[in-house]
Amino acid sequence: MPAARRAVVLLSGGLDSTTLLALATRQGYAIHALSFDYGQRHSAELSAARKSANRYGVEQHLIAKIDLRVFGGSALTSDIPVPKDRAIDDGDTGIPVTYVPFRNAHFLAAAVSWAEVLGAQTIFIGAVEPDSSGYPDCRPAYYEAFQQLVRTGTRDGSIEIATPLIHLRKKEIVALGLELGAPFHLTWSCYSSAEAACGECESCALRLRAFAEAGMADPIPYARPVP
Amino acid sequence: MPAARRAVVLLSGGLDSTTLLALATRQGYAIHALSFDYGQRHSAELSAARKSANRYGVEQHLIAKIDLRVFGGSALTSDIPVPKDRAIDDGDTGIPVTYVPFRNAHFLAAAVSWAEVLGAQTIFIGAVEPDSSGYPDCRPAYYEAFQQLVRTGTRDGSIEIATPLIHLRKKEIVALGLELGAPFHLTWSCYSSAEAACGECESCALRLRAFAEAGMADPIPYARPVP
Repeated sequence: MPAARRAVVLLSGGLDSTTLLALATRQGYAIHALSFDYGQRHSAELSAARKSANRYGVEQHLIAKIDLRVFGGSALTSDIPVPKDRAIDDGDTGIPVTYVPFRNAHFLAAAVSWAEVLGAQTIFIGAVEPDSSGYPDCRPAYYEAFQQLVRTGTRDGSIEIATPLIHLRKKEIVALGLELGAPFHLTWSCYSSAEAACGECESCALRLRAFAEAGMADPIPYARPVP
Repeated sequence: MPAARRAVVLLSGGLDSTTLLALATRQGYAIHALSFDYGQRHSAELSAARKSANRYGVEQHLIAKIDLRVFGGSALTSDIPVPKDRAIDDGDTGIPVTYVPFRNAHFLAAAVSWAEVLGAQTIFIGAVEPDSSGYPDCRPAYYEAFQQLVRTGTRDGSIEIATPLIHLRKKEIVALGLELGAPFHLTWSCYSSAEAACGECESCALRLRAFAEAGMADPIPYARPVP
């Protein structure tokens, strides 16, 4: 039997990346999971990532430290308050205050550095356009540009950036995860709390709507009754 | 008088980036200098960057911490010995062991995050192709790909990645720096030592050849007499 192909899977611990982990595992890759401690407000999502990585028995789970706070500019990493419902920074861009400028480029750069050292062929990232709230780095054109960067800037240019969820709606991701047996009870999405999810922030609202539309109850605990 | 345009200048403390700082200053930008503590073997180059930033009275000098050692794979950040003369990792790629996989993508990602927060229009990076020893991320095609990534992945897509040195030979950079009055005596290039430059590593050899070809003596101290 030939050795399994290797993949780096970017694992935040949320719904999308956990479904992605389930998918890459199903496709037979030897998985090297990569998470980031980047100055998030709390570590509930890293703890969720750890649990899912263990559940899938990945080859390695690396939590890399990147301090994005030094650059400022986002409610997720600085002292700007996270809005309870969806908030836009201004009328021009439609980009929410939770946007960390160019964050995914940091994550992908790390994934490519690691993939080069590991000899991994594929990097899986759970970027999703349809429900992405206007983040500029969730669009297909962005990943095509990054693929070109990898072609020009690595040893042999062959590492593939795979975004299998990019065109899916959140409810389709829930349905896919369900089909793959993804451990949704281990995932975390809430921006505001580390104990029970608040059920009110933008991320909770998206998640709850997705479960409702998929006709499934969200298995994680919420601080108050949710629809 | 209108406010000066802002630029982020990637400043390693070597010949190229110090010449770049002199050039961006001459062009009238308000300069935000960005250096990295990325697990280099010694901090002589960061100390050089600090001195040049002070000399030019930049608006800000940020030293961001990025731990590239966790990914392994390079003589500059791990336990692979740095060769005394030029060494290639294998016969296929022509890429030296001092190559840190995809390093410049980490640096540029940080520069873009910061530029977005600052409202800077331009990022200056001292990439140089002709004497770049086969590093894949010193080629013009790589910077064109990164420019496309910025167009697709930032708020308004307008930040410019400027690589004014990219087609220059090292001796032309020395000549340009001389013309601009760049403080070469404050710069550092040696891979091996933190006191007097060794004069023998690949980086010292390139530097000494450049000064010799430009007909100028290198003003920094060397551990032994150099040609």
